[in-house]
Amino acid sequence: MYKITPQNNGLASVQGFFCAATNVGMRTNHANSGMSDIDGDVAFIRSETACDISTVFTLNKFQAAPIRHFQKYPKNFKTDFILINAKNANAMTGEKGIEDIQTIMSALSSKHKVLNPVMSSTGVIGYRLPVEKIISAFDMLDFNAIDSDKTARAIMTTDQFKKELSYKIELDDGSSFNIAAICKGAGMINPAMATMLCFIVSDADIPKSDMDEMLTAATEQSFNKISVDGDTSTNDTVMLLSNKLSKTYNKEAFKEALEKISFELAMMVLRDGEGASKVVEFEVKGAKTVEEAKRASTALSNSLLVKTALFGEDPNWGRIASTIGASGIECSEDKFTIHYDNLLIYSNDFRELDPKREKEAYNIMKQDRFRISCDIGLGDGEYTAYGCDLGYEYVKINAEYRS
Amino acid sequence: MYKITPQNNGLASVQGFFCAATNVGMRTNHANSGMSDIDGDVAFIRSETACDISTVFTLNKFQAAPIRHFQKYPKNFKTDFILINAKNANAMTGEKGIEDIQTIMSALSSKHKVLNPVMSSTGVIGYRLPVEKIISAFDMLDFNAIDSDKTARAIMTTDQFKKELSYKIELDDGSSFNIAAICKGAGMINPAMATMLCFIVSDADIPKSDMDEMLTAATEQSFNKISVDGDTSTNDTVMLLSNKLSKTYNKEAFKEALEKISFELAMMVLRDGEGASKVVEFEVKGAKTVEEAKRASTALSNSLLVKTALFGEDPNWGRIASTIGASGIECSEDKFTIHYDNLLIYSNDFRELDPKREKEAYNIMKQDRFRISCDIGLGDGEYTAYGCDLGYEYVKINAEYRS
Repeated sequence: MYKITPQNNGLASVQGFFCAATNVGMRTNHANSGMSDIDGDVAFIRSETACDISTVFTLNKFQAAPIRHFQKYPKNFKTDFILINAKNANAMTGEKGIEDIQTIMSALSSKHKVLNPVMSSTGVIGYRLPVEKIISAFDMLDFNAIDSDKTARAIMTTDQFKKELSYKIELDDGSSFNIAAICKGAGMINPAMATMLCFIVSDADIPKSDMDEMLTAATEQSFNKISVDGDTSTNDTVMLLSNKLSKTYNKEAFKEALEKISFELAMMVLRDGEGASKVVEFEVKGAKTVEEAKRASTALSNSLLVKTALFGEDPNWGRIASTIGASGIECSEDKFTIHYDNLLIYSNDFRELDPKREKEAYNIMKQDRFRISCDIGLGDGEYTAYGCDLGYEYVKINAEYRS
Repeated sequence: MYKITPQNNGLASVQGFFCAATNVGMRTNHANSGMSDIDGDVAFIRSETACDISTVFTLNKFQAAPIRHFQKYPKNFKTDFILINAKNANAMTGEKGIEDIQTIMSALSSKHKVLNPVMSSTGVIGYRLPVEKIISAFDMLDFNAIDSDKTARAIMTTDQFKKELSYKIELDDGSSFNIAAICKGAGMINPAMATMLCFIVSDADIPKSDMDEMLTAATEQSFNKISVDGDTSTNDTVMLLSNKLSKTYNKEAFKEALEKISFELAMMVLRDGEGASKVVEFEVKGAKTVEEAKRASTALSNSLLVKTALFGEDPNWGRIASTIGASGIECSEDKFTIHYDNLLIYSNDFRELDPKREKEAYNIMKQDRFRISCDIGLGDGEYTAYGCDLGYEYVKINAEYRS
């Protein structure tokens, strides 16, 4: 058995990790950049000893330069340093984008001893990194600082709040290890895990193969289930580093803690969905297959008509039904049911919404979190995607912000 | 040779067709129905002689009752009457929805001799038709009227303007035939041709097999290429009727006229996209296959981030590139180019947007119609999808209107 307890000090709760951020003035000159005034645009996370690193990267074919730079390292390489910048994605910058990272890393290694340093970027696509500005950060950053709060804030772009979590895992034998993460993301989040950076660090003595296996699974159950607007960015990255300093490990406990931290961060990203006011679980069950359940559930979380109905708090199950029908899965209107939380809102015997149920449905929709559950009635396939509403703020942020 | 000339009198330009509309008070009681005050909710189109009828229906699995009612007629049946209602989609109403149509059609046939009457509905999903109200229309409608304008307006829901076109086709031998159409649609339009009703009538002496073949092809090149928000409704219908009264026909001429009328109506629907202010052609060429070009082009026309950037008139090619990359097609950033109209905005040698080109791009985007052209540089696959911007009005209409 084991015990998982939340901690309050972010990345600082994990042994042997250091992190800090500084501001080198990387804001673009575009008047409409819309980025809020966050004190920091270059940050690092480093470990005093070499770490195994596991990653999940975007499926976008135009992978950004930092991802292509990462992939030049040999398989199963170890690293002790992640450099992160906001404001510039270093995407669609070609080979020059990779050379810029190499120039920056050479400068870094002349200031501080690093092993296979990794870079991660978020911001505007299509501009070369301001190499000299980023290098100037190395004279400002204290490489022995542990400032998780500032690091978590420095990676924000359109985020309304920082995303930082940590857990302590105590095992039966009295030993313990820690896992902590910071995460950035609000717009462009989709079932293919878009414009999101997530850095998870641990001191667990975990084998690399377990890291790879569990990170993929945890991402599938968290970041890949959320949708803000169905787009997928060039830079999405989830990284897991472990420096093994706790000298202890339990696979089951680590798995649970990793899934917990990933899922909670995903919900934070969703709640921070640009202009979003509520998080909705779209459960589809009874589909012929899991793939069909996933297709229908994802269609609901991505549907503009569903998202605007959520924003309008309109108990308009017709849009739910129409979206399920349009997803192309096998379904039949006399076997199908819809619930909002535990309220039956549509079934073969129960089609028109009477005023009493409409009132109840409206009260459920007013909550900042609720579940829409569709039972297809044809099989055992189940999937839950998570979505949010879409309102005026989304349009405002995305018409005015250059990302 | 032949000559195609626009006419001004809508359906009235086609021999032997009659049409009219009346108002039976079918507005829902929902304060937020948002439907504008249009004088008419029940309309008909009929021919004095039996017509062949060809159709393209929604791919939504939950096809509305009028579509399922239609499909109960034998293959290649002839009809002389289409009854149309707005405000209620008669969708997700089960077998009862079909029985309601049968009740209505029985009442109709006691007032007016009809052959295999067809129904078409648009409006809110999930409510039974108000059968008695609709039947009451038969005492009000003048079945010998020809009021194309009123008919075109009666089928509108969130449409901002009526959609009505007609053409006269003159052949070399001095004979001529006519084609005319009315169409309804603004929201929920997607590459699978959503919440749209289109009624095309002709007096050409066209064989049924030509009608079927050409209607499918014309729909593919028009309504299936437009996207307002990526959703697909339960009721989408395109119908083509011909009563042969002109006693003349030319396949090539009919094909061109049908494609022209379908494409122009599709552009009208797109321009009327809920809250849309501009129409954009998304051309993708140089893809490995036509299917890949179509996938990428459709992804652009459906991307919320692209649509909000269009609304913001931000020459943000990064979102175009990211969407192409996310569509999953084969592509490479050093072979890829982007043009806005004739302005090269991205190529391998030409990545960062200088202020001069940015200004030019901005001027192009200010137009109410322009082209974004992406050359993948890998093959011969080409496809053009048509989309529109998405602004505050879209959210307002769809958060407040129950559809």
